[in-house]
Amino acid sequence: MQPMEKVKVIEIKKSVFAENDKDADNLRKELRTKGVYLLNLMSSPGSGKTTTLIQTINRLKDKIRVAVMEADIDSDVDAVKIKEATGIPSIQLHTGGMCHLDAEMTRQGLDNVALEDADLVVLENVGNLVCPAEFDTGAVRNAMILSVPEGDDKPLKYPLMFSVCDLVLINKIDVMPYFDFDLERCKSYIRQRNPKAQVIPICAKTGEGVDAFVQWLLNEVNSWKTN
Amino acid sequence: MQPMEKVKVIEIKKSVFAENDKDADNLRKELRTKGVYLLNLMSSPGSGKTTTLIQTINRLKDKIRVAVMEADIDSDVDAVKIKEATGIPSIQLHTGGMCHLDAEMTRQGLDNVALEDADLVVLENVGNLVCPAEFDTGAVRNAMILSVPEGDDKPLKYPLMFSVCDLVLINKIDVMPYFDFDLERCKSYIRQRNPKAQVIPICAKTGEGVDAFVQWLLNEVNSWKTN
Repeated sequence: MQPMEKVKVIEIKKSVFAENDKDADNLRKELRTKGVYLLNLMSSPGSGKTTTLIQTINRLKDKIRVAVMEADIDSDVDAVKIKEATGIPSIQLHTGGMCHLDAEMTRQGLDNVALEDADLVVLENVGNLVCPAEFDTGAVRNAMILSVPEGDDKPLKYPLMFSVCDLVLINKIDVMPYFDFDLERCKSYIRQRNPKAQVIPICAKTGEGVDAFVQWLLNEVNSWKTN
Repeated sequence: MQPMEKVKVIEIKKSVFAENDKDADNLRKELRTKGVYLLNLMSSPGSGKTTTLIQTINRLKDKIRVAVMEADIDSDVDAVKIKEATGIPSIQLHTGGMCHLDAEMTRQGLDNVALEDADLVVLENVGNLVCPAEFDTGAVRNAMILSVPEGDDKPLKYPLMFSVCDLVLINKIDVMPYFDFDLERCKSYIRQRNPKAQVIPICAKTGEGVDAFVQWLLNEVNSWKTN
């Protein structure tokens, strides 16, 4: 979300962003105290966030305790899918048309999660490569999924999203032969935006590469809980 | 774009939207007087808007005069591509991080288009299924592209976008065998959101189905200029 080019709205933006950053920092401190790691997972619509989560959670759930918050504008199809496919606690956040989540909305969601029974909470953000990148949700890390059919030029076109993400999963690598997608070119575009971002190619449908994401999560959660 | 759940922001939203609707109506009236048809083309990132436009314009440009405005947050790759591939006038609108275009921004773009030499101007909106749907740009019609890899459930998850579009192009039908995408199911979801929307399946890469979109545009432009 960005304001219109009008002074009144620019003022609002500043106050909202400043307040949100403070809310997000407070939320992170609370999560640290409670030993809960929150991951904010973002992507375009249809990049495969839910399928990726199902594959990941089924590999993780015997090792750590996981819960999921599915943000969606209107439907609850994702939360139902996650619950049926993994058996873990999964709640749906309806944003009521809102294009992103901020820290306060994330907190409202977390109030409905049994945090004492969770090591990792994954927030599946609204499918949108623009607005969610602008709001700190209070998550420990931001991760995103870029899927092969979207094209390898997306880091050039959605720079902020790639800048704020610590991890980029490149999904649907099984269909790479049918699309003009150059993995090395994509990685170099991502590095231009964010030299520190890790990139993990996966295929959520077959499970290829998902173990690397699982290992990244286990390291992250372990480090968050012990440091 | 939707406001935060804070009174101050809700007030802003109302005034911005009301003003925008008026601006949009005024812009449409002006375009009617000038005999220029403006199409607002929306979609997710990577659905194939630019490739679709290239295929379409190359079939249209000997029949009517076309110009393109490419909206992008930061890059100019699309405007360059269109110009090189079609030879028609193409300008890039940088939104400076903005997640959508409103009528005033559209007008700023049109000020840089030679409208006396155009029958049809296509506005390629920011790649985003959420926010652009909320702002009337002043276009005569809204069209959108949903690509097969995004999934057939998107009308359930992004209801407003499908409600405001008069035409839905379903792109990348060549890769349907590799994805779990049911065209009839998708059409029925679209009809739930918008019984009047036309649906045209296409493959922008091969050109399949593009003639139907060209014919739709020719009818639309002709009707706008003569009624």
